[in-house]
This record gives sequence, C-alpha cells and structure tokens, in this order.
Amino acid sequence: MAEISNKSPLAPERFPELPAVPGVKIAGVAAGLHYRDRPDLTLAALAEGTRAAGVLTRSGVVGAPVTRCREQLGRPERLARGLVVNAGNANVFTGAAGEAAVEATAAAAADVIGCDAAEIYLASTGVIGAPLDPAPIEAAMPGLAAALSPMGWETAAEAITTTDTFPKGASATVVIDGETVTIAGIAKGSGMIMPDMATMLAFLFTDAALPGAVLQTLLERAMDVSFHCITVDGDTSTSDSVLAFATGAAGHDPVADADDPRLGDFAAKLAAVCIDLAQQVVKDGEGASKFITVEVTGAESDVSARRIGLAIANSPLVKTAIAGGDANWGRIVMAAGKSGEPLAVERIAVAIGGRPVAEAGAIHPDYDEAAATEHVQGQQIVIAFDAGVGDGRARIWTCDLTHGYISINADYRS
Amino acid sequence: MAEISNKSPLAPERFPELPAVPGVKIAGVAAGLHYRDRPDLTLAALAEGTRAAGVLTRSGVVGAPVTRCREQLGRPERLARGLVVNAGNANVFTGAAGEAAVEATAAAAADVIGCDAAEIYLASTGVIGAPLDPAPIEAAMPGLAAALSPMGWETAAEAITTTDTFPKGASATVVIDGETVTIAGIAKGSGMIMPDMATMLAFLFTDAALPGAVLQTLLERAMDVSFHCITVDGDTSTSDSVLAFATGAAGHDPVADADDPRLGDFAAKLAAVCIDLAQQVVKDGEGASKFITVEVTGAESDVSARRIGLAIANSPLVKTAIAGGDANWGRIVMAAGKSGEPLAVERIAVAIGGRPVAEAGAIHPDYDEAAATEHVQGQQIVIAFDAGVGDGRARIWTCDLTHGYISINADYRS
Repeated sequence: MAEISNKSPLAPERFPELPAVPGVKIAGVAAGLHYRDRPDLTLAALAEGTRAAGVLTRSGVVGAPVTRCREQLGRPERLARGLVVNAGNANVFTGAAGEAAVEATAAAAADVIGCDAAEIYLASTGVIGAPLDPAPIEAAMPGLAAALSPMGWETAAEAITTTDTFPKGASATVVIDGETVTIAGIAKGSGMIMPDMATMLAFLFTDAALPGAVLQTLLERAMDVSFHCITVDGDTSTSDSVLAFATGAAGHDPVADADDPRLGDFAAKLAAVCIDLAQQVVKDGEGASKFITVEVTGAESDVSARRIGLAIANSPLVKTAIAGGDANWGRIVMAAGKSGEPLAVERIAVAIGGRPVAEAGAIHPDYDEAAATEHVQGQQIVIAFDAGVGDGRARIWTCDLTHGYISINADYRS
Repeated sequence: MAEISNKSPLAPERFPELPAVPGVKIAGVAAGLHYRDRPDLTLAALAEGTRAAGVLTRSGVVGAPVTRCREQLGRPERLARGLVVNAGNANVFTGAAGEAAVEATAAAAADVIGCDAAEIYLASTGVIGAPLDPAPIEAAMPGLAAALSPMGWETAAEAITTTDTFPKGASATVVIDGETVTIAGIAKGSGMIMPDMATMLAFLFTDAALPGAVLQTLLERAMDVSFHCITVDGDTSTSDSVLAFATGAAGHDPVADADDPRLGDFAAKLAAVCIDLAQQVVKDGEGASKFITVEVTGAESDVSARRIGLAIANSPLVKTAIAGGDANWGRIVMAAGKSGEPLAVERIAVAIGGRPVAEAGAIHPDYDEAAATEHVQGQQIVIAFDAGVGDGRARIWTCDLTHGYISINADYRS
C-alpha cells in the first residue's frame, strides 16, 4: 500500500524524552495487523488501583471499543489495569463480530497482565466497516507483555499511528503535597493516506493519586483548552478517544476534590501536556504547511468564542487563503458571521500577525496589507478576532488547506 | 486580474431560452465597476403593483444591501418597482459609506424608473471590506434603462456573475385560474477565483398576482427543497440573497392564500425552477468535477434528514474520496455520525449508485465494491443513506472537492 514518508514541515526535530511514570509500563510491537515492518499494536500495563478518565467521540456512529470505554467509564470505581490500542482497523460498523473482537482482545490482555478483562481499556483506529480479526492480536500478546518497559514511550507512540508523519509525545512533572508527580502522554492525529484513518487518539498517564471522578473533571477541563480547540478539516472520527490513567504510585495522600488547591499545578500541567499533544496533532494535519492560531476575544461567552474560532478555523476559504499566503481578512469576517454566534458588527476588530486589519466594523485606517501578507506567507500564523459583544475568549489551533490534503485524500487508494 | 475561463465540465450546453414575463424588463451592462469588457451591472424594472419576497443570508455579518432588503421585506405591502445588482464589490463591512452607496444606487434607479427609492431592491456580490463607489453605477443608470428589454435575461444573468464559469437561468409556465403564468429566474453561484466572491444570488420573476405574504410563503417552501439543499464548501456568504417578484400582470384574480389549490401547480413549478437554478450553482461549484446527490431517508424528521445530508455533503473526506473515484462508504457513515442527529446504528443502510453497500449496521453481504467504484468514477453520483429511526427525508446536492478548489482559492491572487 502507498505510504507518505514525507515528514510534515511542522514536525518537531525529534521525539521528546519522556520520563518513566511509576506504575506504568508500555510497549509497541509489529503484530502485522495492517502494516508491514512497523509497530501497530500497543499495550500499557497499569499498577493495581489505577483510575481511568476519558473523553470520547460525540459521533452518533462509534466503534465497538468506544462503546466499551463508555460502559467502563460509567462505573463509579473506574478501575484500570491495562490499555490495548491497535492501528489499521477501527472496528467500527462491524456489528456483533466487532463486539466479539473487543471481548477477545480484552481477555487476551487481561490474561498476560493478570487482571479482570473489565479493567482493560481499548482503542482502535483505521478502516471503518472491515471485520477486525482478533487472532493476530491474541497471538502477539505474550510478546508484547514481555516487551513492557517504563521507557517504551516512543515505540508505543509509533504503534498507535496510522499515517501520521511523526510520533507524538509530551510530558511534565509537578509537585502534589510535597511529592513529585509525573504526567506523560502520547497521541496520534490525522496524517491520513489510507481511507478512514483520521482518528485522533491520546493517552495520558500519571502517578498522581486521584479518584476517577477527580481525574475525569481535570481531564475535561484540560480538553476544553486543548483537544477541543483544534481542528484539521471539521470531520469527527467514529473513534476519537482521549483516555487518562492515574496510578497513584506517587505516594501523596489521595486528593478527593478537583478544586483542591493542591491540584492547581497538576491541573495546569495536565492542560499543558494536552495542549502540546493537540498542537502536534495539528502540525501533522493532512497536507499542513502552516500552523494557525485563531485568538477570539469579545464574544458573549467562552463557549461562543470557541464556536466563532472553530468557524474561522474550519472555513475552507480561510484555510485556502492562508495556504496561498493571502491576507484575506474578508474571509475571516465571513466565517465568523456564519458561526451563528452573537457579533456586534460595528465593533468587530480583526488583526493579523498582531497588526490591526479592521476595527469598528470597517477596514482599519492604518491597515498595512504588505505587512499582513508577509505574516501570512510565514509558517506560524496568528489571527485575532474580537466579536465586540462581551468578555468570552478562546484560542483555536488549525492548519492550512493545501493541495496536499486533496492528494492524500483523493489521489491515493489503499 | 486572473480569470478562469475554463467552463465547468458540468455546465449545460447553452443558456436556456427564457420567456418574457409580463411586467418585467431587464438588462445588464458593462459599467466598468470591477471587470473589463463584460457586463457587471444589472437592472430590472417591474410593473406597478409588483410584490416582493426574499430569503436572505443567515450570516451574522451582512452587507448593506442585505440590511436594506430586510427592512423592505418587513413592510406589509412589499411593493417593488426595481432591482439593481452589481458584481465585483459586495459592499460588506463598509460602515456608513456602504449605507450611503446603497442609498445613492437606489435613488439613481428610482430616477430612471420613476418610482420611490424604497421600491428599489438591491444586491451586491464581490470583495468584502472595500468601499463601493456609487458614481459609476449612477453614471451607467440611464444607459441601463435604455437597454431594458423583456428578453434581456442572458446578459442580465452574465452581469450578476463574478467568477462563475457559465450564466444560470431557468423558467416554467403554469396555469392559475385559467390564465397562463410565467416564472423565470437567474442565479449566480460560487465559481470563485477572486477572493470573497462566493455569494449565491438568485432572482425569480413571475406575472402571477399574489400578495407579498403569499409569495413569501411559496418562496420559503421552494427554498426548503432547492437552495437550502445545496452546498459547495459549507461556507455562507455575507450577501446570499434569493428575491422573488410577482408583477400580477397575468390577469387572474389575486390568490390570497398560499394553500389555495389554485396555487398547487404554481408552487410546484416555482420549486422546480429553484431546484434547476440551485443545481446549476452546484454544477459551477469551485473546482467541481462531479455532481453528487445525497438522498437521506429514515431520519427523525425532514429537518433532521437535511442536517444529515448536509453533514455528508459538506464532509471534506467524503468529497475528496468521490473526487478520487473511491467508493469510500465508511466516510459516509462517519459524516452522518458527526451530524449529531438521531441514528439507529443497527438499522443504518447505505447505497451507492442504487446498489446496497451497508445495512443493519454492517457491510451488506452482497456489497460489490467494483460496481460501487465504477459508479463513483462517473460524473453523476448518487448516495443513499437511511438513518433507521423514522420517516424524515431530504435530498441534498453538492459537488466533489478537487485540486481545482485549492487552485482557485489558494494559488491565484487578485
């Protein structure tokens, strides 16, 4: 099958050095599920007592692993002992056979870890509608268990990718109640060449001691400023999953309230790791040649600001203009207008690259088109939009829409 | 400035022969507003007693002409004596100068027609944020008035275009109460090369004798099955306007109720003309190489069906797959899933080109990928999606997403 080997021009130089997270071992192996000669199956083993949190796709059509995660996260104790991720087949729209594959995979992982299958979390990414044969996964499980290591991050980050052009990882350390706590995460994005492989997955691991409900609250808050603020093409996968696991191995007293001041730094660093991973996903967007930040202020609420920002960031006309190095601010106004959110047209302001373009509902008297064009012809683009109605704000990240996107999605076949 | 002269491969062979509509004279001239050597200013003169109806963009940022139309359509009598359309400048985000340009244009048209400026309707399409100088419009008005003709359709249809690759017209005749009534319409779409020129405009003219409120109701019903069912890229213009004018010259007794059985045929033909024009807009979509019909059934309601259909038709992943001749039905399911509308996954059915692809939430046992691929490699694509929850249905038309779209919107500069 065709593969795009060209790394995104926005890729970091190398995979970051991720620290061990006490209570977590991880590994990736080439199980021959879909790809040849590259890892495509990931296993994480988690210490007893680990708690899980998760944010799953809001699509009306979801894969069997997502349905299973929803059930697991509905249990108050949220216990987790393992995570299995396969790349190449999303196990979506596969009926009863899909559910059987999920059960077989969980049982195989529970077997090698020595736990209840209900404590194994699953995620899949890849083709929709093709039956997932669990046999190669079951066969690979003993070898995968033998490869588990506290430092297996990079191989694991590679094994969860489909057509991403680089593996994605981020980490932070923080102090809770005098104890050093580590957060590490890996993610995959939408570097797609094979049809249907645009699922976004991210997995966060920490040794903090947190009840599942607290971890869930902190994860959701971090999502609101990270993964919920990125878009590549506005499409939503059937399998998007962000899961967080807290092993409790750090040794501090469990913190039972998400608003406890002892968690302030942890919450901030968790958000920072999520933002780092989310930005890496955007930087590996299909065909991306520019990284775009859309800063919205003056909206009726933060939610409204996010909707305005996403309308701008998802507009094909905005994204193609930026791809072409065109400081086409009229399209920014058009896209904000179509968001359906409250705007005070006579107070709208637009800036590109920090310079004013429009204010008070008309072009700015000092608008310098040459400067705006020079900024938009760079690789890091910053658009600011003020809606003129309130204090709501949001920051959205996206990439441009290029011939590369069309080539990746239309020109190649699996 | 750069212009794309290549006609869309989906264009009709020639502009249709539109009949005269009693009470309507129309003309287009090259006023040098924005383009050289082609018509860019349109005037229609309407008989005394003509009533107007309109459906305007739902964008939160609208042009001065749209604001003016909103006010006019808010008056119960809805009287209309003229229509002026300029191409090249949308008169959007232009502040008080934009309002002054609108007033000057209406006054100039009222002068040559001999009516109240409040009875002149306006529409503009083109660049956003550039001041519109009314002087060339005022200067051209006497010549435009002299050129008015019952058969001026084709030049008028050309004069409202921006970068459309062909002028768009459609007509029908119908009998109301024993009298023959004519409906004729022209439209422009989103054949865009100049930034910000993707506005959709359509103007319908009839000699039926209808109160403004009845015309409005019939127009809105026609919109629901025509212009509201098309999408090129999901972007919404600041200037989208569909206006309908009924001169009453046909001589039948005025019909005061939109549900009067005497209007049944008129309503159907008005919808047919709107559907014809709407499909022409799609066929001139930026970079379009294929015409796609999405038929949704089994939704909770007709509104829900339209949302599902638009989610499929707007999905860049669906549109690029079709551009690539790939019968990628998983992307259709993904797009329906992200619509947020009710779906019964275990009863979802998908067909491509009339052949079953998926049913009961999984791939169809008789799925013939070769046949589906052959269909998708053609120029007229039909996708059917059944949501499995109710009786709601909708039909949506769109085009594929090709390198042409990127080239038109990113590669060229004005």
